[in-house]
Amino acid sequence: MTKKLEVCLSPALLGLYDVKDYVVVIIDIFRATSSICYGIDNGAEAIIPVAEVEECLAYKEFNPDYLLAAERNGEVVEGFDFGNSPFSYTTEKVSGKTVVLTTTNGTQALHLSRAAKKVAIGSFLNLTPLCNWLKSLNEDILLVCAGWKNNFNLEDTLFAGAVAEQLKDFDYKMDDPAIAANDLFQLGKNDIAQYLKKTSHSERLKKLGIEADIAFCLQTDITTAIPVLTDEKLVRLR
Amino acid sequence: MTKKLEVCLSPALLGLYDVKDYVVVIIDIFRATSSICYGIDNGAEAIIPVAEVEECLAYKEFNPDYLLAAERNGEVVEGFDFGNSPFSYTTEKVSGKTVVLTTTNGTQALHLSRAAKKVAIGSFLNLTPLCNWLKSLNEDILLVCAGWKNNFNLEDTLFAGAVAEQLKDFDYKMDDPAIAANDLFQLGKNDIAQYLKKTSHSERLKKLGIEADIAFCLQTDITTAIPVLTDEKLVRLR
Repeated sequence: MTKKLEVCLSPALLGLYDVKDYVVVIIDIFRATSSICYGIDNGAEAIIPVAEVEECLAYKEFNPDYLLAAERNGEVVEGFDFGNSPFSYTTEKVSGKTVVLTTTNGTQALHLSRAAKKVAIGSFLNLTPLCNWLKSLNEDILLVCAGWKNNFNLEDTLFAGAVAEQLKDFDYKMDDPAIAANDLFQLGKNDIAQYLKKTSHSERLKKLGIEADIAFCLQTDITTAIPVLTDEKLVRLR
Repeated sequence: MTKKLEVCLSPALLGLYDVKDYVVVIIDIFRATSSICYGIDNGAEAIIPVAEVEECLAYKEFNPDYLLAAERNGEVVEGFDFGNSPFSYTTEKVSGKTVVLTTTNGTQALHLSRAAKKVAIGSFLNLTPLCNWLKSLNEDILLVCAGWKNNFNLEDTLFAGAVAEQLKDFDYKMDDPAIAANDLFQLGKNDIAQYLKKTSHSERLKKLGIEADIAFCLQTDITTAIPVLTDEKLVRLR
């Protein structure tokens, strides 16, 4: 039977979908879901995304061995183990550990999606393994773009379009946002970094001095783990 | 000074913008804003968009000479003068008249935009006159897509991209939704009707038997009037 492949372009639009009918993929390319994919692939036991620095600290109080990750204005928050750069999520640093990560856009999208059949984490890093898993499920799929301050952004939408590209020849019916995302991916796919240079978000990130992070997050298929939400934690799908 | 050219992809995202800082253009290509442009161009004194059939009837009670336009399930509502097809808005029918029009998506977008510096109505029918006027204002511009059931749709986004196409070589800074809309317009501009055929919305409209309306609404620059909101009514900009 034909399944749905739909794209929610911003967490502010999630109320339009009955998430319990879907397998949801959360997308926050710069940088939360890229860092999560890399960290879980490198053996992190779990990653717990929270919205506020204070929540991070509360976790640490009861779990002194947890690693804390938070940035404010591009700097690691004092007393924290590292920031949000994917380069912090190496095997050496995270293997066997639980990381509590502050992320505003991504956390909200996750929180609103908790009622879904399954919640997975997507990024260019695990694109093809993710798509192969999605195809195997035979379920309606909702790709949720975390966006920027609750609005549409190009990088998350382009990734949604990359997922649509791998699924569209199978038996999925795409909604207008999925069609648009896929068309935008067609325009950008030959050089995604170049395509995204014209966006305002890219300029903002450049000011933060994280060009190396951006280049890292745009690598395709360098990991195989699929992080999934289980009991409020993101763990490797087994 | 550089001005903003931004696109709000759905009325559900309007809360993210401080509309009082913008000149707003409301876009509901199939069919509300196309019919409004055609009706005002054909000499309608005013068009009053309302959300519910009952509101239409309330207007008529106090203004027996008003024309009422409403459809439910593709049929003209009993006792009403005509439906939502642009073909109803001919000079013969609307010249000198006030029309009360029910439209769900468009009315909500208008209602939420009332605090803007100015509110205008856009469609392919008045594309270039609208853009020339916008350029003359030297103001920040927000293009508001009425969408479909509060979500993104391709036809309204494509029109926003057509406006961006005419303004982008002037001194405007586009946000990510505007960049995406303009890129989608590039893909579709050579044959917009063909491009839109792949959308779900197009299928839905075809079922309603309004292909002729669709073809009409995709004609570019056949009118010159710019409908603007004044005291809750849409009238011709003079």
